[in-house]
Amino acid sequence: MAINIDEMAVFCKKKGFVYPSSEIYGGFSGFFDYGPLGAQLKRNIMNSWWKYHVQDKEDMVGIDGSIICNPKVWVASGHVGGFGDVMVACKKCNENMRADHIVEDQLGVQAEGLSSEDFDKLIKEKDVKCTKCGSDELGDCKVFNLLFKTFVGPVEGDKAVAYLRGETAQLIFANFKNVVETSRLKLPFGIAQMGKAFRNEIAPRNFLFRLREFEQMEIEYFVHPDKEKECPYVDEIKDYELLVYSAEMQENEKEPVLMKASVALEKGIITNGWHAFWLVTETKWFEELGACKENFRIRQHRKDEMAHYSSDCWDLEYKFPFGWKELQGIADRSDFDLQQHMKHSKKDMSIFDEETKKKVVPFVVAEPSLGVDRAFLVFMFDAYSTRKDEKGNEVTVLKLNPKIAPVQVAVLPLINKLQDKAREVFATVKNNFNCFYDKSGSVGRRYARMDEIGTPICVTVDFDTLEKGVLTLRNRDTAKQVRVKIEDLNEKLNLFFAGEDFENLGTAVEK
Amino acid sequence: MAINIDEMAVFCKKKGFVYPSSEIYGGFSGFFDYGPLGAQLKRNIMNSWWKYHVQDKEDMVGIDGSIICNPKVWVASGHVGGFGDVMVACKKCNENMRADHIVEDQLGVQAEGLSSEDFDKLIKEKDVKCTKCGSDELGDCKVFNLLFKTFVGPVEGDKAVAYLRGETAQLIFANFKNVVETSRLKLPFGIAQMGKAFRNEIAPRNFLFRLREFEQMEIEYFVHPDKEKECPYVDEIKDYELLVYSAEMQENEKEPVLMKASVALEKGIITNGWHAFWLVTETKWFEELGACKENFRIRQHRKDEMAHYSSDCWDLEYKFPFGWKELQGIADRSDFDLQQHMKHSKKDMSIFDEETKKKVVPFVVAEPSLGVDRAFLVFMFDAYSTRKDEKGNEVTVLKLNPKIAPVQVAVLPLINKLQDKAREVFATVKNNFNCFYDKSGSVGRRYARMDEIGTPICVTVDFDTLEKGVLTLRNRDTAKQVRVKIEDLNEKLNLFFAGEDFENLGTAVEK
Repeated sequence: MAINIDEMAVFCKKKGFVYPSSEIYGGFSGFFDYGPLGAQLKRNIMNSWWKYHVQDKEDMVGIDGSIICNPKVWVASGHVGGFGDVMVACKKCNENMRADHIVEDQLGVQAEGLSSEDFDKLIKEKDVKCTKCGSDELGDCKVFNLLFKTFVGPVEGDKAVAYLRGETAQLIFANFKNVVETSRLKLPFGIAQMGKAFRNEIAPRNFLFRLREFEQMEIEYFVHPDKEKECPYVDEIKDYELLVYSAEMQENEKEPVLMKASVALEKGIITNGWHAFWLVTETKWFEELGACKENFRIRQHRKDEMAHYSSDCWDLEYKFPFGWKELQGIADRSDFDLQQHMKHSKKDMSIFDEETKKKVVPFVVAEPSLGVDRAFLVFMFDAYSTRKDEKGNEVTVLKLNPKIAPVQVAVLPLINKLQDKAREVFATVKNNFNCFYDKSGSVGRRYARMDEIGTPICVTVDFDTLEKGVLTLRNRDTAKQVRVKIEDLNEKLNLFFAGEDFENLGTAVEK
Repeated sequence: MAINIDEMAVFCKKKGFVYPSSEIYGGFSGFFDYGPLGAQLKRNIMNSWWKYHVQDKEDMVGIDGSIICNPKVWVASGHVGGFGDVMVACKKCNENMRADHIVEDQLGVQAEGLSSEDFDKLIKEKDVKCTKCGSDELGDCKVFNLLFKTFVGPVEGDKAVAYLRGETAQLIFANFKNVVETSRLKLPFGIAQMGKAFRNEIAPRNFLFRLREFEQMEIEYFVHPDKEKECPYVDEIKDYELLVYSAEMQENEKEPVLMKASVALEKGIITNGWHAFWLVTETKWFEELGACKENFRIRQHRKDEMAHYSSDCWDLEYKFPFGWKELQGIADRSDFDLQQHMKHSKKDMSIFDEETKKKVVPFVVAEPSLGVDRAFLVFMFDAYSTRKDEKGNEVTVLKLNPKIAPVQVAVLPLINKLQDKAREVFATVKNNFNCFYDKSGSVGRRYARMDEIGTPICVTVDFDTLEKGVLTLRNRDTAKQVRVKIEDLNEKLNLFFAGEDFENLGTAVEK
């Protein structure tokens, strides 16, 4: 990776991808605003996710639930009672810290799965210090609820308390009955949702990685409880290779192993075909949009880090500059959530299964849920590269996949005199692609600017355009050029964005 | 209009467009969840808005700001101080009511522009009653702040207070400097944003019309302060006809008049070319996506209803079943917001104007801002229609424009025996359009189901498909049918969704 996370934040601000939120007032920790290029890249990522996961799948429907809903949803889900981080305050300077962070940073131990008492013991025995003033007089650990609270209606008070959703998933469970009754779904099926979620993190960090306000793309995938391991789609994914890091490998300090999904299933490393299916499906989504497959691995949760409702869980992980981190968890949630909502709402959530002629409460076999902001980081890190320009200076080339690049095509008149023709060319393509017209500065400087923001194709209008009706197309990644007739431009660009090699678009230009 | 707002809510729930949020817990007033068809329709509306307003316009960029930001943004904007509704409580039963609603409903007076004192006077003198218990003992009117409050960080208290954004607009102003510095915009230009906003309405009502959580599509359009009325695009819109309802017409109790934009400008009814430009641009957007133009009018604010920062304002209004209501306001905000943020943040927001070689603080000449949920209602009302089926029963036909219909194409085997072939046909189109495969019930019943949810085209696989390789395409709006060769299907559907008449797609089927 060419740059670290702080450098990425600087780059994103400088080029108009992402700014600290309300920066003119000193920003606001854990909140960011997407600028013009970032907003378009984020949209492209989300639209691709929706098409791949919802529109193109017959067994999937989407919903779009509210951020604030009846607070009973969060009581039933367990979030009001126990959705929290363990926190510790410094007695000297009052700094609030996350117990898992200081224990991991200062003692180098794995904090996942540790209880409030475990942290107390570690902090006292191992002399953990305040990150701000260095004092070792730290208070007792307390669980801090991560749900943001608000008040709905004209009277502020306990009766009016509501919460900003801590995840989009609960809206899927709360709407389960309505969705099933108004769609014509048969098990197995999934319900998907994209949208904002909020967690009052004590210590937001790593730019877009740990935010207080973030955007999720979430799926709950439901199966018949008696057919929890019968995935009919295993054949589609069996030959796909994954870097597998099982609980057993971790416990025995072995390295992850690259293997086909079918091998992982045969060897019993992955025990559920649905998990293999979703782990491959999700990795492929990233790969098809240009992420580097070698930066992905799948890691099984060890027993000591498993959620209480989950019987098996695999994380899809990505190698960030600050280490391997979770992108999404493919977890087995059984019927935990639906049962909770049945209990609290006293509404029947069972559905009629046509095959077995019985009413069943479905199991969730996987929830392939992904943070948009983390996905955004993945694509940016894998795209970021540098090369030497003709003068030997290091310049940035953002090799975003053409499918998600915020600007797809730039139209450039070689010199100002060619503007009329260039505007004509621009007019023919502007409504078909995300286009940018640029006339300022030398053409080399303009190419460099487009390379920096990831524009895959520059279309240059030169004297040959006037004389022979041909345009020069330049490829961002190779700086190679081909010539194309004006009347073929839209067709050639369509071919390129559908996956055709750049070199096949026209006649090569010799330098 | 065929149905009223309550019937629309019932229809939307029944067909999976919109459900009351967290309905299993009794719902939550002012919050709704979009079901599978509604989520897709809403996405299509928003994607169309973004393409039309941002991607296709050279003078426009988009951003995507956070919902929670530094609370100083809302102090500067004036929302913390004075963003409220006037509220009155019943002394007998404690019911909280909006003063403007009860005064409008019970006295038939226009409540816009009235102060808290005006309401007190009216309520006492004219014997206004509690809507719940009928008592006329109402308390004093109070202003109630509409911003939802929350607490950020581990300590709850005044220092940690933040707000859910009451509009997306302020994120545009707060980010103005960053956007200008990282984009290469020249005056005049616009900055657009889509996203959720929140208002703690005392009395949410009319289904999706007045919500506590809603989605906005917002533009702030900036011009040079010395060229506030110089719109270079007037020629593009001059021949478009608008139903104009000026302040003068309202004050003299005249009817609105249909006139060309150029006439309204020449007669001095609309005094700013930018206002005419945006009023037409916005009406056209609705019209191009299938809304009925005769249900739209533009209404000028009278002096008594103008916001303090605004020197002129026109509303685009739509004729809902509950009356003419505002869809968006095209207001002149001068440099009010940028000046407020300059004052509070002490950051310079002026920009260098290349033409005049001076630094200027731009004026906002229009903020064409639209509620997605209201637009959703417009398209649903204008699409909703009924017709008699062959047995004389009244059936619903949802005539959504093909560009926004949530399901674009249904593939239906005439009988179950034809399923293999039908699946083959389905496979060839499923990734190119939003498709639905349906084999259950008589083909007539399946057509009716597709008519109800607004699917423009049904593709039927019958015996001729096996024998001659031809498919039957059925049009939702006319129930007419044409035959098309299997190998031409994608091309024909592409033509149809690009605007080609259905009858031209193939050979007509005689009934």
